[in-house]
Amino acid sequence: MPLTPSSITPSSATPESVTIVEVSPRDGLQNEATLLPTETKLELIDHLVAAGLRRIEATSFVHPKRVPQMADAEAVSAALPRGEVSWIGLVLNERGLDRAVAAGLDEVNIVVVASDTFSRRNQGTSTDEGVDLWNRLSKRASDAGLKTTVTIAAAFGCPFEGEVPTERVADLIRRCSDAQPDEIALADTIGVGVPAQVVALADAARREAPGMPLRWHFHNTRNTGYANALTALQLGASALDASLGGIGGCPFAPAATGNIATEDLWYLLDRSGCATGVDPAVLLSGARRLGEMLGTTVPGQLSRAGLFPPVELPPA
Amino acid sequence: MPLTPSSITPSSATPESVTIVEVSPRDGLQNEATLLPTETKLELIDHLVAAGLRRIEATSFVHPKRVPQMADAEAVSAALPRGEVSWIGLVLNERGLDRAVAAGLDEVNIVVVASDTFSRRNQGTSTDEGVDLWNRLSKRASDAGLKTTVTIAAAFGCPFEGEVPTERVADLIRRCSDAQPDEIALADTIGVGVPAQVVALADAARREAPGMPLRWHFHNTRNTGYANALTALQLGASALDASLGGIGGCPFAPAATGNIATEDLWYLLDRSGCATGVDPAVLLSGARRLGEMLGTTVPGQLSRAGLFPPVELPPA
Repeated sequence: MPLTPSSITPSSATPESVTIVEVSPRDGLQNEATLLPTETKLELIDHLVAAGLRRIEATSFVHPKRVPQMADAEAVSAALPRGEVSWIGLVLNERGLDRAVAAGLDEVNIVVVASDTFSRRNQGTSTDEGVDLWNRLSKRASDAGLKTTVTIAAAFGCPFEGEVPTERVADLIRRCSDAQPDEIALADTIGVGVPAQVVALADAARREAPGMPLRWHFHNTRNTGYANALTALQLGASALDASLGGIGGCPFAPAATGNIATEDLWYLLDRSGCATGVDPAVLLSGARRLGEMLGTTVPGQLSRAGLFPPVELPPA
Repeated sequence: MPLTPSSITPSSATPESVTIVEVSPRDGLQNEATLLPTETKLELIDHLVAAGLRRIEATSFVHPKRVPQMADAEAVSAALPRGEVSWIGLVLNERGLDRAVAAGLDEVNIVVVASDTFSRRNQGTSTDEGVDLWNRLSKRASDAGLKTTVTIAAAFGCPFEGEVPTERVADLIRRCSDAQPDEIALADTIGVGVPAQVVALADAARREAPGMPLRWHFHNTRNTGYANALTALQLGASALDASLGGIGGCPFAPAATGNIATEDLWYLLDRSGCATGVDPAVLLSGARRLGEMLGTTVPGQLSRAGLFPPVELPPA
């Protein structure tokens, strides 16, 4: 696969801005063994809002026995500051959608897993059953006034089956776009993707769902996440997922590690002239505070390396 | 600065192959506080050769009081397996060149630092004095039959002065190319660079030194190193520096951290169809062994995350 496809042309300059979708309260925390109190999560969310993030995946409406960290989805949702931010809840089934609607979120992110084995482990259905479910749920969500995203998970590879053919993902993009989502998200759930795959999948999406806004979700497990994000941006990404501190991972994928870090993505984009509307000082103090909350050093590097050119930051 | 410049065109496909210049024995080790025995360094070098790396920066000929880790430059050089590999020594002055020539290395890498403050701290000269020195040293090195690289260090930013203007680097490229080096290397010594700077510097090099082979040197201090490497490759890089395990850093730059990791760069390139001639199994066992040598977890991620699709590796 060529890294520089025919679809990168001299006219495809960097966009002047891109939306960062912040996923630390959901993907970031869901794999943490220590249960965080709801108030701590809300403190994190306050930091994210103060940093200027305006689309935030706040929680997931999944079974509390399967993902104990998300058992307080309703409590978190009830306390979210409404108005400026579009709040997203992740949903895997009918019950989850009922809960997201009742909780008054603005958007639902509904997952279809591209490989059967991972799909069964993640949500107990085959991929085809997942597509049928998406079709039903998306209609109900739209009727309830929520924006809808379909995330095609494991689109870059499966921890159990290995390679996921581009044509399989292309087929899923086509079938999922029938229900007219507000966007399609392509997720490298286990951090195996490379820029050439971003190119191939972006080309597939253009072919199978012309004009559909594309959101991308990268994990940095093998240090390819930021190069993937850059490539997606060059190919017209409408939104990029990131997680404060680079925390995160999937409880149902072995050895999964964190998302690309919001603050490191901000650095890469901002110094390249692509605006995100995010305040780096608040991001960095938030990343440091997040490390304290989790009792660890977060994988994101900017909070340790510091801004460049160097600036003095206020204390966290 | 646009991320996708006019110089990325539909015809600029990924090269089918690129040379990785391995710098772990020099840049990788020079910042390590614990002195490694020469035999341990030679064990590392044996791993690198076995992995298929064919250009290796083996040591630097600098004052042992300034960089104690490189005090055994002659002993390392004397034990290098000759034949398949082009061995590189880093040189900062006349005395260093004398030593590199006497040690029988194949190439010298001579450093000109783009900012005056960092130049004085790194090698005791201004930038202009560095250019004059390069002109003298390169002639002597060529006369002695060694290939020459001029590395423009801190080309993406200075830890003391901050921003380094592209036009300052462009001027250095023009002045250093007069002496006809075999290649020019552009180094992000402190890991602050972003892809848009790679684009700007590649354009500058094309303008100021048409046809000159370009080698690039990236540190991953702010998680931009692999995106920078990808961009350099798309713009026709002839060689990319990397360090096994992602170890490294400059003793004269505060908070400098490691180079991009050879094994992680291999993963990004190989899965994108760009050949490097490197054996990943040997690289990964080498990265794990390097961690043992240094008593640390190396920053490179592939040796922890594993290859994809998963394969069983032989024990280190």
